[in-house]
Amino acid sequence: MERQWPMLQIALDNLSLDQAFVTTRLIAGEVDIIEVGTILCVSEGVRAVREIKALYPGHIVLADAKIADAGKILSEMCFKASADWVTVICCADINTVKGALQTAHQYGGDVQIELTGSWQMAQAHDWYDAGVRQLVYHRSRDAQAAGASWTEQDLATLQQLSDMGFKLTITGGLVVDDLPLFSHLPIHAFIAGRSIRDAADPVAAAREFRQTIRHIWG
Amino acid sequence: MERQWPMLQIALDNLSLDQAFVTTRLIAGEVDIIEVGTILCVSEGVRAVREIKALYPGHIVLADAKIADAGKILSEMCFKASADWVTVICCADINTVKGALQTAHQYGGDVQIELTGSWQMAQAHDWYDAGVRQLVYHRSRDAQAAGASWTEQDLATLQQLSDMGFKLTITGGLVVDDLPLFSHLPIHAFIAGRSIRDAADPVAAAREFRQTIRHIWG
Repeated sequence: MERQWPMLQIALDNLSLDQAFVTTRLIAGEVDIIEVGTILCVSEGVRAVREIKALYPGHIVLADAKIADAGKILSEMCFKASADWVTVICCADINTVKGALQTAHQYGGDVQIELTGSWQMAQAHDWYDAGVRQLVYHRSRDAQAAGASWTEQDLATLQQLSDMGFKLTITGGLVVDDLPLFSHLPIHAFIAGRSIRDAADPVAAAREFRQTIRHIWG
Repeated sequence: MERQWPMLQIALDNLSLDQAFVTTRLIAGEVDIIEVGTILCVSEGVRAVREIKALYPGHIVLADAKIADAGKILSEMCFKASADWVTVICCADINTVKGALQTAHQYGGDVQIELTGSWQMAQAHDWYDAGVRQLVYHRSRDAQAAGASWTEQDLATLQQLSDMGFKLTITGGLVVDDLPLFSHLPIHAFIAGRSIRDAADPVAAAREFRQTIRHIWG
């Protein structure tokens, strides 16, 4: 039976693995998906993926590599390091998407398209036709820092993507109070990063996310 | 005096640093710019940038991180590792571009926008206004593998970007025979990867690139 509520994903956007471990040793038991963030991928390389999966084999481990080209090579590097899922950036050529997806299926993994920055709805049809089923709807960290908030347009776009058949992951400076905004949608996963990692009590913060999710979608 | 001919950049898209060193120890003397490719960045992390610059302090070292978000953090990671230039992917939010550029200027470095996959000419004006002066025009590795070649449209777009005042770097499966296609443009740099790395004689291959560049633009 498929689970009835959105999954919770912790984003490890740390500068080093040891910093990431400080978070995971506390809250791994509270999350479904552990994301090796782009910052950690660039900082430590793909060994970060390998070591996180070795420590947490029961979790879904996502390599947020934001692949823009060389889809087969980069995704294979991540899947060989035991990633379950990898991300491809939204502006990637469709052949890059197909290469990553083909590789994912060879390894029993999956590909998420990362909707960060500039993209067009017309691309969503190409992704679906290529076999993509997971999208990450990302309020840009930098746009957010510049004051951009969740808008009606965000919610309309999410509805449209959901209606097309995509599983949606939501991210971008999410806090618990944002969750009710999405209550009418069958969200696949929510990503929390700093709101859990930087909380005074990360375990309590993660539990509050889980409980709120179950309350809304339960 | 500014140099009169395009620079030559070697792309180290290796899976490991030791493989990259096999190339650099042979041909570093023949190139102006050493690119730590995205594949190598993901494989080894930012230490690849640090070690390449330590070995070749007289070269321009480019971290092809294809930054999509967290422009300040990711670019600072690369500049702290002694990168001279970093790439930002074309779909990045303009605030990501600005963050990377501001950081670059603090470190005396520069930012290149990587034109891989889907982008719009309207964005080019935003990049210029934000202070970007370098673009990398990239025939996608995967589009290329699917049969895409250099087209009249590519050349028209390059002319337009050059007229706007951008310095252009050209890449995407380049071979020496492609160079005359660009002879009417003031190209800033050409990137060669596999055509040098995988040549029977990489030194001869790199020299042929340099000599052809000087012959055409000299």
